[in-house]
Amino acid sequence: MTSKIIGVGNYVPLEVIDSVFFNENIFFDENGKKLEQDNAVIAEKLKEITGIEERRYASKELVTSDLGLIAAKAAIQNAHIDQETLDYIIFAHNFGDVPYGGTQSDAVPSLASRVKHQLGIKNNYCVAYDVIFGCPGWVEGLIQANAFIKAGIAKTCLIIGAETLSRVTDIHDRDSMIYADGAGAVVIQGTEGDVGVKSHVSASHTFKEKDYLYFGKSNNTESLSDTKFIKMTGRKIYEFALLHVPEAMKKCLDDSGYKINELSKIIIHQANEKMDEEIVKRFYKLYDTPVPKDIMPMIISKLGNSSVATIPTLLSMILNNELQDHEINENDIVLFASVGAGMNINALVYKF
Amino acid sequence: MTSKIIGVGNYVPLEVIDSVFFNENIFFDENGKKLEQDNAVIAEKLKEITGIEERRYASKELVTSDLGLIAAKAAIQNAHIDQETLDYIIFAHNFGDVPYGGTQSDAVPSLASRVKHQLGIKNNYCVAYDVIFGCPGWVEGLIQANAFIKAGIAKTCLIIGAETLSRVTDIHDRDSMIYADGAGAVVIQGTEGDVGVKSHVSASHTFKEKDYLYFGKSNNTESLSDTKFIKMTGRKIYEFALLHVPEAMKKCLDDSGYKINELSKIIIHQANEKMDEEIVKRFYKLYDTPVPKDIMPMIISKLGNSSVATIPTLLSMILNNELQDHEINENDIVLFASVGAGMNINALVYKF
Repeated sequence: MTSKIIGVGNYVPLEVIDSVFFNENIFFDENGKKLEQDNAVIAEKLKEITGIEERRYASKELVTSDLGLIAAKAAIQNAHIDQETLDYIIFAHNFGDVPYGGTQSDAVPSLASRVKHQLGIKNNYCVAYDVIFGCPGWVEGLIQANAFIKAGIAKTCLIIGAETLSRVTDIHDRDSMIYADGAGAVVIQGTEGDVGVKSHVSASHTFKEKDYLYFGKSNNTESLSDTKFIKMTGRKIYEFALLHVPEAMKKCLDDSGYKINELSKIIIHQANEKMDEEIVKRFYKLYDTPVPKDIMPMIISKLGNSSVATIPTLLSMILNNELQDHEINENDIVLFASVGAGMNINALVYKF
Repeated sequence: MTSKIIGVGNYVPLEVIDSVFFNENIFFDENGKKLEQDNAVIAEKLKEITGIEERRYASKELVTSDLGLIAAKAAIQNAHIDQETLDYIIFAHNFGDVPYGGTQSDAVPSLASRVKHQLGIKNNYCVAYDVIFGCPGWVEGLIQANAFIKAGIAKTCLIIGAETLSRVTDIHDRDSMIYADGAGAVVIQGTEGDVGVKSHVSASHTFKEKDYLYFGKSNNTESLSDTKFIKMTGRKIYEFALLHVPEAMKKCLDDSGYKINELSKIIIHQANEKMDEEIVKRFYKLYDTPVPKDIMPMIISKLGNSSVATIPTLLSMILNNELQDHEINENDIVLFASVGAGMNINALVYKF
C-alpha cells in the first residue's frame, strides 16, 4: 500500500513586491551595524545569490489559513472528489495566522480546522490538525498522511502548506527580501498500484543546528520593542544544507530502488537558487554523474521563498502546465527535497 | 502490530496559585459588562462547577518547551531506553513558547526540536515535530506515533504534551481561573504482544463549532490593546462535549471489542469536573450501566486545566503511584478521552 497524488492546487498572492519596495528601509547587520551600501546594491547582490527578483505578499485582509483555503479548494476540485470523503486535513505552517500589522500568531483553533470549516465539510471524522516542522513541513505532512494510509486509518488526505512570512519579517534585515507568502495543496489517496510514494527520509538536526533558523529580535539594536521576527544565520544554513541535503536525497533515492539516471525531476524547496543548484550538483556528484539539463524547475525568481508553500506550489504549477519548459509525465520519477528550521531535512521519491 | 507504553513522566510546576491570586482582578463578562459579585464569590462558584481549587503556574524563567523537556527526561528515564533509539519526538501544544510577560508565540524551531536539542540527542533520524490539535493534541500525537509504528517507519516514539496557559489568559475574564501550566510525556514502542493500543477515534467538529474555543480580545472592552487571549464559550462547549464525547468514547470502546464492564479506568482530559462527571455518566448510560466507583481519577482540583498536559500528567501520576485511591494494574483496560479547541475529540482504548 502506498499513496498517489490525485489533485493539486496552489495560490499565488496577487501583490507583486519588487526591490523598490525595500528602498526606504534602513538595513543593519546581525550585530546592529548599519549597512553602508545603497539598498539597490544590496537588493542586486541578494538577487545574484538567491535568484529572487520579486516576491508575492498576501492582501492585507487575508491570513495564512485563507491562502491555504484557496489552494485546498483548487486541489479538491482538481482531484474530482467529494470533499466529505477526506479522512485528514493536514496543514503545515510555522507561524499560524498573523494578521496584517499584528505580531501575535493565532493557531487556536488550528489552521486545518479553519480550512475545514470554510470548506463547509460536515464529516466529523475528517481529522484536521496542524504540523510544525519548519520549511519541510508540507513534505512531512505528506509523509505523515502516507503513514496513516499505510496504517489503514485513512484513505484520502488533503495536505496544505501555507505561510505569510511577510508578516514576520524584520524591515531592518536585508534577509526580509527573501521571504514571501503563498500556499499549495495536494490530495492523496491510497493505492496498491505501481505509482505513488516510493520512499522517504526525514531528519531533524538539532544537536548544533537548532538555532540556525529562529525567531529573534530586530537587527535594529536601538529598537526598544521586544517583537520577534524570522531570522536566519545564512552562512551556516548554506554550509549545513550543502553538507546534509545531498546525503538525505541519496539515501531516499537508494531506498526507492531507482537509479540516478531514472530521475525525471527534482522538486526542491525554493530557498535560495545558488544553494539549490549547489545541492543538486553535489547530489549528482555522489553518483559521479553530471547534472542533467532542466532537472530542477525553479520559481523563486518571481515568487520568493514562501516556506512550506514552495514545493506544493511548484508541483501544482508544473502539473497544471503553468510552467514553461517543465512537465511531468506518466511514469516519471520525481525526487522532492526540503530543508529548513529545526533544522529539518526531508526527501521523498514519487512515481507519477 | 500495535504500541505499548514503556515509560511515563510529568512535570507539575512549583508555583501554587490559589484564588486569592485573582482577588484584585476586575472581571467583565463576554459583553464587557463588569461582574457585580465579589471575586471570592466568583472563585467559589467557579470551583463548584469546575472543581478547581488551585492551579499551577510555571516559573517565570521557564517556557512550554522547558516544561516538556523535564517531563520528557522523566519518561525516557522511566522507559530505561537509550534516548538515541528514539525515532520520533512529537510535541503537542497550542501556543508555542510564550515568554513570561510576552505576547508572541514562538515555535521556530519547533518545540520538539528544542527538546531534542536539550536532551542532547545526536541521532539525526530522530524526527522532531509539533502537532496542534487543541487540548486533545497529546492523545492525537499518541495516535500518530502508533500509526508510524504500524506503517513500519518507527519503533520507539516520545510523545510530549505541555502548555503554559497562564501566559495567554485574560485577567479580565473569570475563566482565567481555569487555566494552568503543566507537562506530561510518554515513550511508546511497537509490540506484537497482547498489551497496547487497541482502538482509537478522532473527530474534528468544525462545521458549527470552530470558534467555541478561540484566541480573542480581552473582556475589558475599554482596553485599547489588540492582544489576544484564550477564550471559551463555556456553555456551548459544555453542551457540545456532553453530546459528542460519550458517543466517541462508545465508538472507540466498541471498536476495541471490549465490553463496558471490562473497563478499569477512564482517563479523561481535566477540563471541568462537573463536565467530566456528566460525560462519564452519559457514556455509561449508552450501555444502560451504572458508573462504577473510582472509574475516573481526577487531579483538576489541585492542578487546574493544563490543556494537552492533563492526560499524560494524570497517567504518569497513577503509574508512578503518586495518586491515592487509584492504580492501574497488568491487564487493565483503560479508556482515554479528550475534547478541546477545533473542536476536536478523541478517544483511545489501551490494555496495560
